[in-house]
Amino acid sequence: MPLSIAYLGPAGTYAEAAALAYASSLAQDQQPSLCPYPSIAQTLKAAAAGQANVAVVPVENLIEGSVTVTLDTLWQLDSLQIRQALVLPISHALISHASSLEAIQAVYSHPQALSQCQKWLERFLPQVELMPTNSTTKALHYLEVDPTVGAIASLRAAQLYNLPVLASPIQDYPDNCTRFWVLGRDTSPTCPVKLGLETAYTSLAFSVPKNAPGALVRPLQAFAKRQINLSRIESRPSKRSLGDYVFFIDLEIAFTAAPVQAALTELATYTEVLKVFGSYTVQQV
Amino acid sequence: MPLSIAYLGPAGTYAEAAALAYASSLAQDQQPSLCPYPSIAQTLKAAAAGQANVAVVPVENLIEGSVTVTLDTLWQLDSLQIRQALVLPISHALISHASSLEAIQAVYSHPQALSQCQKWLERFLPQVELMPTNSTTKALHYLEVDPTVGAIASLRAAQLYNLPVLASPIQDYPDNCTRFWVLGRDTSPTCPVKLGLETAYTSLAFSVPKNAPGALVRPLQAFAKRQINLSRIESRPSKRSLGDYVFFIDLEIAFTAAPVQAALTELATYTEVLKVFGSYTVQQV
Repeated sequence: MPLSIAYLGPAGTYAEAAALAYASSLAQDQQPSLCPYPSIAQTLKAAAAGQANVAVVPVENLIEGSVTVTLDTLWQLDSLQIRQALVLPISHALISHASSLEAIQAVYSHPQALSQCQKWLERFLPQVELMPTNSTTKALHYLEVDPTVGAIASLRAAQLYNLPVLASPIQDYPDNCTRFWVLGRDTSPTCPVKLGLETAYTSLAFSVPKNAPGALVRPLQAFAKRQINLSRIESRPSKRSLGDYVFFIDLEIAFTAAPVQAALTELATYTEVLKVFGSYTVQQV
Repeated sequence: MPLSIAYLGPAGTYAEAAALAYASSLAQDQQPSLCPYPSIAQTLKAAAAGQANVAVVPVENLIEGSVTVTLDTLWQLDSLQIRQALVLPISHALISHASSLEAIQAVYSHPQALSQCQKWLERFLPQVELMPTNSTTKALHYLEVDPTVGAIASLRAAQLYNLPVLASPIQDYPDNCTRFWVLGRDTSPTCPVKLGLETAYTSLAFSVPKNAPGALVRPLQAFAKRQINLSRIESRPSKRSLGDYVFFIDLEIAFTAAPVQAALTELATYTEVLKVFGSYTVQQV
């Protein structure tokens, strides 16, 4: 059986580019197969149910921030661990059959891509209607029938579907990038054994009792007093009541390190639910 | 000149319902006029530029969390202060000309509304295509031409546009609600003078030096050691580099209270940029 990699499709999305980058990093005898899914939630659930060996999903964009569906789905599932993080440069192109920018009346793309090109769109296409789609590749479907329509996707997608590029790059920040996680089934937190503790990251999430003063400060102090640096904190609604949150934290150290183990033991006394999603290294694509 | 209230339109959105609730709470001689804008960013910018007296914008949903465009735009603008918070119950309906659920092939709505009805859709319409739109009202436009299409919006929107309701309520959580902020132009933080310090909230945002260990812990400790409860913390990308954030915090006390003033003085020594968006009370609609 070849290794199967679930991702948000169809072919041509940035998630597929991340999945291909992960596939090319594997040993040649693994020959992975790529499986597109229609949503990020379904991509993660496929890996959790064993329909795919791993899922490659976006977790955070430099400009737009967290991909909240990834965090919320991961909190609900119990069986996925992070194997690897990938940072993928994101460069957007305006793809259209129009002869010039003046002919364009509507631009379709995933809301994240539309936001990442917001200033460019305000400057060059201030009057067009911005239309959200479920993926950047889906936006390309609208080009077929209408030459007054543009779509925002990657140059790779334009080549894949043999479509003309009207402008590129058009993202507002040249260093735009997205962090992806590669996740697989595991019953206990995993750690990349070959790598030093200092080159690894650890991701975890926890809920705290609502309305307890300092409820978030104590967990953060458990790390700060042990000189463990947090590279990220994100709050998500617990979906129980307004003001009740789940916190997602990334540490710049492997979870097997002694200070992390001590901090996690202390943390468990403050939290209602604590989930460790394992340790992993970050690969720049 | 009547008071003008900017909101995300067209008429029939939840933002309009919040704007109407705010209008009805005003003294009768103010007779406000409601001005729809095509996006949340434009709504806020209209108030900042003085084109409208106030903007009413969603800031957080119980299920889907922060409305990130509201936070990001507020961080960029320098002249808006929060006058009031409104908590609006959110109840969604499936609106369609179809004779039954079986006839529906696609459902259109704002991505937040689609997410808030995710479990209902998986159960009753597992095969339909979910299509994002810029507002719930925009989704209603797709009903005109196609009886196999459904839209998710409020019962109020269905009545306003005289459209048939196929199912209601369909949100996954019966207590679903969204918090809105009413913002107006002011050069310095404002505080509702007639109300006790304990019934008010204060919102602020700050950036900290990147990669400083404990960079977030010290600001939080400034509040915790003075027994000031945080009802919310949210991180947003600074849009400079991955791992560089702006933090948004809500305090359960007015900013004029002595402990808050002391905490803010201490906080200013840890932060790069610190913005106080004023104090306000919360009104349940």
